Amino acid sequence: MTGVVYGVGLGPGDPELITLKADRLIREAGVVAYFRKKGRAGHARTIVEGRLRPTVVEIAMEYPVTTEIPLSDPRYNAVLADFYDRSCDALRCLTDAGQDVVVLAEGDPFFYGSFMHIHSRMQHHCPIEVVPAVTGMSAAWTATGHPITWGDDVMTILAGTLAEDKLARHMTQADALVIMKIGRNFSKVVRALQASGRFNAAWLVEFASQDGQKICRLSDFDGKVTPYFSIIVVHGQGRRPETKTEQSQ
Amino acid sequence: MTGVVYGVGLGPGDPELITLKADRLIREAGVVAYFRKKGRAGHARTIVEGRLRPTVVEIAMEYPVTTEIPLSDPRYNAVLADFYDRSCDALRCLTDAGQDVVVLAEGDPFFYGSFMHIHSRMQHHCPIEVVPAVTGMSAAWTATGHPITWGDDVMTILAGTLAEDKLARHMTQADALVIMKIGRNFSKVVRALQASGRFNAAWLVEFASQDGQKICRLSDFDGKVTPYFSIIVVHGQGRRPETKTEQSQ
Repeated sequence: MTGVVYGVGLGPGDPELITLKADRLIREAGVVAYFRKKGRAGHARTIVEGRLRPTVVEIAMEYPVTTEIPLSDPRYNAVLADFYDRSCDALRCLTDAGQDVVVLAEGDPFFYGSFMHIHSRMQHHCPIEVVPAVTGMSAAWTATGHPITWGDDVMTILAGTLAEDKLARHMTQADALVIMKIGRNFSKVVRALQASGRFNAAWLVEFASQDGQKICRLSDFDGKVTPYFSIIVVHGQGRRPETKTEQSQ
Repeated sequence: MTGVVYGVGLGPGDPELITLKADRLIREAGVVAYFRKKGRAGHARTIVEGRLRPTVVEIAMEYPVTTEIPLSDPRYNAVLADFYDRSCDALRCLTDAGQDVVVLAEGDPFFYGSFMHIHSRMQHHCPIEVVPAVTGMSAAWTATGHPITWGDDVMTILAGTLAEDKLARHMTQADALVIMKIGRNFSKVVRALQASGRFNAAWLVEFASQDGQKICRLSDFDGKVTPYFSIIVVHGQGRRPETKTEQSQ
């Protein structure tokens, strides 16, 4: 019998925002695997602290250091692809021997997640079960204290890595916006929001649902943006039944 | 002391996809409130079956029957607004008396949810805490067995209630798509997918994560679509490190 790979979403970071199903699989796991940077505890691993069986086997898949290779260099992708290949070779030894493996995945595994690199390599070798989770963007708009979408609002999710004109075009056309991967793309994203007339309605959320959560209007922000766990949110303003207050105005 | 309103997201329907935080608040609740259709158990209420304290007070907020009023008629919104107003008047009696109220919200409360009608009416009267949840769309793309977004894919979420040309324009411009509210708009949504060249890549998911979950390629679908809990998904195909298999082809 081949073992099963469980791609278990951990949600946005608050350990209480794990689902009951994920919690059960994590507590029962004989083997857990997770990605992390070399020399770090790892964010996924930190979220599940205190839940693992004392006898659990942990496989930390440590990203190769790539800081000296530019993102645009083909070698960047080659190094990462090789890393994912080797990681999956190791996992496959276990599943081939009948061992289930719980892969801890930050956020929702199939939504811009690194779990998909495991999924694409393992899907023809063993059964895979994915447990969806609360996304980081849900935690971000919840933190702003306002609904992200109403009625038939169009919502678009953008990566800050896109070209400035493409960002601005999508920002103009959607009602609600979520912009991720803004770290080193922050100035470009701000210019695109200004060009599309959405800047004044934008909110910046850092470390949503985690220790150190910060929320502010983007126009009030004058610090240096956190490279990770930073999300920009623009709320939709779609059709909604009026409140008494609005009707009386 | 004013009571607190908790807007507790229940996720897509599978009771095991509730978060630990939502589960705790539901189990501890003295008063729970939820929307439902007249004469029904209510979907939100069904999800939490077996978790409520024996002494819990339940407030079922039953939607007025509106089938005889067309959606485009201004009376439709007026009837709903009045219903939300009266529901919130009742909740406010409790919070004014210092009683906390847990409002059970399907999906994620701030993402196209009916909880926002409570939020907009109560936010200036009492503290509100929202617990984000797994969205129905996460359950839908997870059910397809494929990642929805990779790298810098642009993802757009559309309501089937939008005009056909607007639907088609957004479908052309985004990489990954989620289309909700497709029940009576099904034929229009299919035409827009065909016009934008996305029809053959579309999947239909009904009752994601629930009993009776069904998944198929939209092009293979020849039945009658479920009015509720039906979602169309088109996966993005963005930048990703190649797998060994792809490299060797």
